[in-house]
Amino acid sequence: MAEKTLDTLFHDTLKDIYYAERAILKALPKMKRGAQSPELKEAFDTHRSQTETHVERLQQIFEMLGKRAQGKTCEAIEGILAEGEETLAEYKGTPALDAGLIAAAQAVEHYEIARYGTLKRWATMLGMDEAAELLDATLKEESETDETLTGLADSAVNEEAMAQG
Amino acid sequence: MAEKTLDTLFHDTLKDIYYAERAILKALPKMKRGAQSPELKEAFDTHRSQTETHVERLQQIFEMLGKRAQGKTCEAIEGILAEGEETLAEYKGTPALDAGLIAAAQAVEHYEIARYGTLKRWATMLGMDEAAELLDATLKEESETDETLTGLADSAVNEEAMAQG
Repeated sequence: MAEKTLDTLFHDTLKDIYYAERAILKALPKMKRGAQSPELKEAFDTHRSQTETHVERLQQIFEMLGKRAQGKTCEAIEGILAEGEETLAEYKGTPALDAGLIAAAQAVEHYEIARYGTLKRWATMLGMDEAAELLDATLKEESETDETLTGLADSAVNEEAMAQG
Repeated sequence: MAEKTLDTLFHDTLKDIYYAERAILKALPKMKRGAQSPELKEAFDTHRSQTETHVERLQQIFEMLGKRAQGKTCEAIEGILAEGEETLAEYKGTPALDAGLIAAAQAVEHYEIARYGTLKRWATMLGMDEAAELLDATLKEESETDETLTGLADSAVNEEAMAQG
C-alpha cells in the first residue's frame, strides 16, 4: 500500500465533495418546489445552475490528477440534506417553512465553504495552482450564496410566522 | 396541534444544536488523542472547554423558553463526525493525519457557525435579546476556532506529508 500523504487526502476529499455536489444538485429542485416566496425559489434556481458549474470544475480537477471523476459517499451531506428534508416535511404548509429552508440551505453552504477552503489550501500546497483557482472560484460562489440566503432570511419571516404557535 | 411558527422552529433548532454540541464534546478528546502536533492537541483541548460553556449557554436559553434542555438527534453532526472518525482510522500513523483532522474539525465548526448564525437571527426576531447575546458569544468563539485551525493548517503539513504517496 502506498503511504497516505497529502495528495491521497486531496483526492479522497475531492471524491467527498464531488458526491456532495451531485447530491445537492438533486436536492435543490425539491427545495425550490417547497419554497413559498418567489425570491427564495429564484435563489435555489440560481444556485442549481451554479452547482452544475461546480460539478464541472471538479471534473476538470480529477482530469488534472489523471483520475476518473468518482464520488465517495459523503455521510456529512447525507445528514445535512436529511435534516433539510425533515424540515420540508414537518413545516410544509406552515408560515415558518421558508425560514427553515433557508437555515437548511445555509448548513449546506457552510459544509461546502469548509471543504472548498480546505481543498483550495491543499491544492496550493501541492503546487496545483490551476486547481486552486477553480476551487477558489467555487468557494467565492458558495460564500455569496450564503450571503444571499442571509439577506432573504429577514423577509422570509413574515408576521404570520411570528405569531405565537 | 398548535401551528408551527418561528418559535417552534427556534425550539427545534435549539434541540438540534444541543445534541450536536454534546456529540462534539464526546468527539474532541478522541481528536486530541489522534492529533500529532502539540499545537493541534492544545487547540482541541481549548475548544473542549469552550464547548462546555456552549452547552451551558444552550441550557440557559432552554430555561428562558421555560423548556427542558433536551437534544434531538442531529443527523448532520452524526455524518460530519463519522467522516472525522473515518479520517482518523484511515490516516492513523500517516503524515497527513493532522491535515485531515483539521479539515474534519473545520467541517464541524462550519456546521455550528451556520446553526448559531440562524439561531441568533431568530432570537432577535423573536425579541429574545438575552438569548441572542448568548448565541452571538458562541458564534464568535466558533468563528475564532475556525480561524485558529486555518492558522494551524499550514504548519500541520510537514515535508513528510508533502512527499508523493
